[in-house]
Amino acid sequence: MGKKRILTGDRPTGRMHIGHLKGTLENRVKLQDEYNSFIEIANIQALTDNYMNPQKVHDSVFELLCDYYAVGIDFDKSNVFIQSEVPEIHEIFVYLANFATIQQINHNPTIKTEMVQNNFGKSTPLGFFIYPIHQVADLVCVGADLVPVGKDQAPIVEDSRVIIRKFNKAYNTNILHEPEYLLGVPKNVPGIDGGAKMGKSLNNAIYLSDTEEELRKKVFKVYTDPNRIRATDPGTVEGNVAFTYLDLFAIDMDEVEGMKKRYREGNIKDVEVKERLFEIMNEYLYPIRKRREEAEGMKDELLKKALKSSKKVSEISRVTADKMKKVMKLDLA
Amino acid sequence: MGKKRILTGDRPTGRMHIGHLKGTLENRVKLQDEYNSFIEIANIQALTDNYMNPQKVHDSVFELLCDYYAVGIDFDKSNVFIQSEVPEIHEIFVYLANFATIQQINHNPTIKTEMVQNNFGKSTPLGFFIYPIHQVADLVCVGADLVPVGKDQAPIVEDSRVIIRKFNKAYNTNILHEPEYLLGVPKNVPGIDGGAKMGKSLNNAIYLSDTEEELRKKVFKVYTDPNRIRATDPGTVEGNVAFTYLDLFAIDMDEVEGMKKRYREGNIKDVEVKERLFEIMNEYLYPIRKRREEAEGMKDELLKKALKSSKKVSEISRVTADKMKKVMKLDLA
Repeated sequence: MGKKRILTGDRPTGRMHIGHLKGTLENRVKLQDEYNSFIEIANIQALTDNYMNPQKVHDSVFELLCDYYAVGIDFDKSNVFIQSEVPEIHEIFVYLANFATIQQINHNPTIKTEMVQNNFGKSTPLGFFIYPIHQVADLVCVGADLVPVGKDQAPIVEDSRVIIRKFNKAYNTNILHEPEYLLGVPKNVPGIDGGAKMGKSLNNAIYLSDTEEELRKKVFKVYTDPNRIRATDPGTVEGNVAFTYLDLFAIDMDEVEGMKKRYREGNIKDVEVKERLFEIMNEYLYPIRKRREEAEGMKDELLKKALKSSKKVSEISRVTADKMKKVMKLDLA
Repeated sequence: MGKKRILTGDRPTGRMHIGHLKGTLENRVKLQDEYNSFIEIANIQALTDNYMNPQKVHDSVFELLCDYYAVGIDFDKSNVFIQSEVPEIHEIFVYLANFATIQQINHNPTIKTEMVQNNFGKSTPLGFFIYPIHQVADLVCVGADLVPVGKDQAPIVEDSRVIIRKFNKAYNTNILHEPEYLLGVPKNVPGIDGGAKMGKSLNNAIYLSDTEEELRKKVFKVYTDPNRIRATDPGTVEGNVAFTYLDLFAIDMDEVEGMKKRYREGNIKDVEVKERLFEIMNEYLYPIRKRREEAEGMKDELLKKALKSSKKVSEISRVTADKMKKVMKLDLA
């Protein structure tokens, strides 16, 4: 019995920020010893809503490689692979597509939301529409046992299981593996503007690649308590991004509790909180930033490792695709 | 300047009948000298509405090989290839999918009709839904210059041109070739029951593989003039399948005109018309039947040639897919 396989991944559409760090990256680092970890840079899927901007997707592949390295993903332990280097994914997608329905995709809440976000109106690109099923092919390609997800995403794994089960049932086989979800509690990081989500397009993100100076500027802009005019006014800690970040990044939680108390009592200035927050975050992010700078000079090496892992995934996928062809009676020779 | 490339093909879902013969097969034989002909056995597409019956699709691949050989398709001139042996088709499909919309597919009249025929109701398999765009990938794979079609199908080629043009425009390139249609006048062959279309599921087809005895039985069942009770009643030739078949298969058209005149005058028995029709059709189909019997013993050889052509198409497709990847900035190494 080898280690169980897990699959995670990202669309390369920009650099990664502290939302990614707390939401998934730190978890991946934790999991990479216990599991046989596969991390996909989904550049083909990134193109589905960025097909007019291929340069961005191209460049972001390298940004992700650096971000992964920076946070401590070990390219010799984790199989970081690039979707475009595994053409079998497309083939396996087509084989699975007979077991998904367009109605099922139409009812997918993520797709519904993203359709509105992308403003597709009356012309939804097919490439975008098929991506949830294309993702099932990703799972099949690596033969994932487990998919680390937050509660919200559990239904996506459930949909994948249904499609895989239907395929197996139709051809009276068990060659495809139904992945299970590995429920984690991804930490949600609000934007510096107080928005629920941090994102590039929202212009409210703190990037892993931000310099100390950029970090300071952003920390001093974080949304605090808008009703607090003077430092002697009692302030609210809930929904106050400075304190949310303190909760996420501070080591000494007693210190944070003390600051919260003083804030509520009107006994600490906003600027004092922010100065301390900057110090704490900078200390946390400093080693990541240093490793990221190091990674910038290692792009070729990181790419080489990712291409090697891609080849490995491609080989595993070829075996699976051939097994699928066999049960579909497509083996002729 | 080499010969222009044409692409035709069939879904392997059964043996071929005289509807195929007059609709497309004879035309392909005619075109195979003048053009660089590619003939696709679309077994992956056949599975989209036969995914629960893979054995039928598998066996039909061999039926088509025999039917092609029987009608005179020269496997050394025409590139008979098998879709499942060209995985690049799926990859190219995914690259094109960003330039097609689901609304466009929903408005495709063929898809609309087939959805009803297939009785999909509220669960349309994604595999079926995507096939019109998957067909565009077929065209791109062989780099088709021309697609032989009847008038009805010209819009399908036009749709393909639009998708290909959008791809080229998005990436400021001309790597993909917009195929044009080669308008033919495919002869429509009604079913023996007088139905507009001949088809396996309609149980009204005369197969190329039918024995002389089967042919005779079917010819004697053809729909004639239902209002003609006695041989002395004046009969109607229009919509009379016996005379439609005579028009399609007779060499001596004067003889046919004479028979039509006598039929209209009530001067020839139905049975006499049918007897002569049988003779004429049997003479026409005899050499095809003989070659088909010969082909049955050559299945391995025919498959080998088809696999060789498939490899060739796969290689051409790989080059195209790599060019596409390059303009999409997916080339990383």
